[in-house]
Amino acid sequence: MNKYIALCGGVGGAKLALGLDHVLRSEELNIVVNTADDFQHLGFYISPDIDTLLYTLSDLNNKEQGWGREDESWNFMAACETLGIESWFQLGDRDLATHVFRTQGYKQGLTLSEITKLISQQLKIKSKIIPMSDDSVKTIVNTDIGKLSFQEYFVKHACSPEVSEIKFKDIGKAKASIEFDSLLNEENLNAIIICPSNPFLSIDPILSLHDIRQRLKDCSAPVIVVSPIVNGQAMKGPTVKIMQEFNMTCDVVTIAKFYADIADGMIIDTMDAEYIEDIETIGIKTYTGNIIMNSLQDKISLAESVIQFSKTLSTK
Amino acid sequence: MNKYIALCGGVGGAKLALGLDHVLRSEELNIVVNTADDFQHLGFYISPDIDTLLYTLSDLNNKEQGWGREDESWNFMAACETLGIESWFQLGDRDLATHVFRTQGYKQGLTLSEITKLISQQLKIKSKIIPMSDDSVKTIVNTDIGKLSFQEYFVKHACSPEVSEIKFKDIGKAKASIEFDSLLNEENLNAIIICPSNPFLSIDPILSLHDIRQRLKDCSAPVIVVSPIVNGQAMKGPTVKIMQEFNMTCDVVTIAKFYADIADGMIIDTMDAEYIEDIETIGIKTYTGNIIMNSLQDKISLAESVIQFSKTLSTK
Repeated sequence: MNKYIALCGGVGGAKLALGLDHVLRSEELNIVVNTADDFQHLGFYISPDIDTLLYTLSDLNNKEQGWGREDESWNFMAACETLGIESWFQLGDRDLATHVFRTQGYKQGLTLSEITKLISQQLKIKSKIIPMSDDSVKTIVNTDIGKLSFQEYFVKHACSPEVSEIKFKDIGKAKASIEFDSLLNEENLNAIIICPSNPFLSIDPILSLHDIRQRLKDCSAPVIVVSPIVNGQAMKGPTVKIMQEFNMTCDVVTIAKFYADIADGMIIDTMDAEYIEDIETIGIKTYTGNIIMNSLQDKISLAESVIQFSKTLSTK
Repeated sequence: MNKYIALCGGVGGAKLALGLDHVLRSEELNIVVNTADDFQHLGFYISPDIDTLLYTLSDLNNKEQGWGREDESWNFMAACETLGIESWFQLGDRDLATHVFRTQGYKQGLTLSEITKLISQQLKIKSKIIPMSDDSVKTIVNTDIGKLSFQEYFVKHACSPEVSEIKFKDIGKAKASIEFDSLLNEENLNAIIICPSNPFLSIDPILSLHDIRQRLKDCSAPVIVVSPIVNGQAMKGPTVKIMQEFNMTCDVVTIAKFYADIADGMIIDTMDAEYIEDIETIGIKTYTGNIIMNSLQDKISLAESVIQFSKTLSTK
């Protein structure tokens, strides 16, 4: 059986994951998801990126809004406001069921991996959604208004503070989840795909787990990066804003350099074709095409390109 | 300031409590509520009778359904079913906010009394809603299908099993809440009103708390029972069914006997006027009137009668 790993954050990366889920057969795709944004809120254990994958792959996601569930209602939140319960993090009525399921699972002693598998089964998801780790890691964003948790930065302050540093609390103690770990030991792994998620906030936590960067470097399967930047713009979220705050040039070459030690190939948009030579000079093969994913067909086409491209790289 | 205590269970008793809340001035009414039905479900601390009082007195209750909140939606529950979460106890989307508030309060070390006061303030309720106890007491119903928790009996099995015995787990260790206790020490208490709630399931837990029956007996304020039975029928719930299972005659005299040691007065419906003599023989003064509360005006009128009647008894 073919085995692909996709490293993924939330909404931006989930678009490609959905395409790959359509293109690959049942259980061929293993989506390893950032969990450094996970947090507890109002007594619930919330895993925003895993939830995004669960909802996207079960077609329950809200396509217009870009996050949360379709046909969502907000009556819980409205009643919370009446009671004076903090409401900066919006929890939809249907979405709550996922958090209750996860919180109950934790209380019963299950791991996040086990809980995620149970939810995936209930939602009849054919690909595997795998937390990067079953240990707690917390993204801390140092900003001009102080140290913020990821959700404070991302939701409460809508990414507006200026970022000076991103840290992952407890990353030193966190191990890759058992399934992620054993996938990296697979001899017949076809490819590792880095989805177009935020490199600093979504992919870096995964790469910063003990040994993971090194193991991706040593892995016989090709590592393919799908650029989260097209024509100087981010597909989603604060990638470009953070690059500016880090005094980085906002182009695909900077992304290529970020992944230089592990990437064998990179897929960039045709709009960025001028950078091909710069990227190949770093030692990364490039493939150009349309990588902006609006429609489901865009997602499927890009996924097909990723798989095709990976085959040309697979003899490293 | 006048001070009245009303002992109350859920929906049936809350109708009179609402009437009293309209008739009495701010903070004159102290509603001491049964908490033996409280339970934990899906990680939430749920106090069904307290919630009924909170919603009824803040006019948030669902008048047609008789329980829960008005304008309620059930999308959380629907999503729970998709995930295979048990759904026999229906939690509405708005109702959930109350349980989250309470559960968070417990985690912060607050008592049920403190939590209930905070919610009452947020909902701008003018009367005091006071849990009978801040200690855990659990109603256990012995039935022909085995030992059931109250909610299993009441909701899961819709009161259909035959009841042989009702017990209150941990009642021996439970103390009256501080506010209930200090109210009973008030020298100028005007009256103690036993609302038309189920005597065995809703009022008996309150009376079974250490010393409480004796203190009501010794209390200088009159104790007035509003009959939960009219013309052999219960206002609400399984009162009559349980009386039959206990081989009791289903009339107001049986209710009078149940409260004989503490009651000074009893309000029965004009339909039950034939029993006046039997009740007065027991040593309980009677007052007859319409005690079926359909409209808000019915509730207010009955509450006015209760207050008037209490004044005729107050020189005991």
